[in-house]
Amino acid sequence: MNAESRIAEIVTELEQGWNKGDGAAFARPFTDDADFVNVRGLHIRSRDVIGNGHQHIFDSIYKGSRVTYALATLRSLAPGVMLAHVNSTLNAPSGPLAGEHQAKISMVMVEVNGDWRIAAFHNTLVAS
Amino acid sequence: MNAESRIAEIVTELEQGWNKGDGAAFARPFTDDADFVNVRGLHIRSRDVIGNGHQHIFDSIYKGSRVTYALATLRSLAPGVMLAHVNSTLNAPSGPLAGEHQAKISMVMVEVNGDWRIAAFHNTLVAS
Repeated sequence: MNAESRIAEIVTELEQGWNKGDGAAFARPFTDDADFVNVRGLHIRSRDVIGNGHQHIFDSIYKGSRVTYALATLRSLAPGVMLAHVNSTLNAPSGPLAGEHQAKISMVMVEVNGDWRIAAFHNTLVAS
Repeated sequence: MNAESRIAEIVTELEQGWNKGDGAAFARPFTDDADFVNVRGLHIRSRDVIGNGHQHIFDSIYKGSRVTYALATLRSLAPGVMLAHVNSTLNAPSGPLAGEHQAKISMVMVEVNGDWRIAAFHNTLVAS
């Protein structure tokens, strides 16, 4: 499978992890030491912290929410490094972000043992 | 000069460009085809668009504003590719962001002809 197809597949894996409310599944495509900046500007680090943090929000403020992710752009930065931008639509039934929200994600993908992983993820709400 | 020192210098160049209200100076450390996602989730592309867009805000909503940038973390993703996180403090005398605001920036740095350039920049306001 080429890089473009595999990275599109990873975007779908993230979406499925979120929509199942499964923090570990959401975090699976990240590298062990991945960096993650969320829509509140909080910077966290490592797959475990990303998984646990998402499980916490899936069980609380984002309980029952659904996301749709669409890969918007993808380009190579260097051998084994790709930059992706993803458009996110979140529908949350309750909590501080109840309703529908658009966000823009930058993801830096790195090739690890012949597969691709997310090394850096940064997410910003699109101002309405 | 090693990568760490040069990238710290580039962070200072960005800060100086902003504080002079000089869009071209702010944009100088970016690659020609750099990607930029701003605090409103707007995704723009290329050094020229980044420079012109910043000149527009320096002359309008951010007129007279000052930023302080501090390099928070820096790590290698691959040969010739570094990931940086920068803490930003903006003081704006007027406009929609009047007052002091913190933000978190992810920057992907690439080595070009023996120097370093910003290939991707993503900025999110830190929720208070």
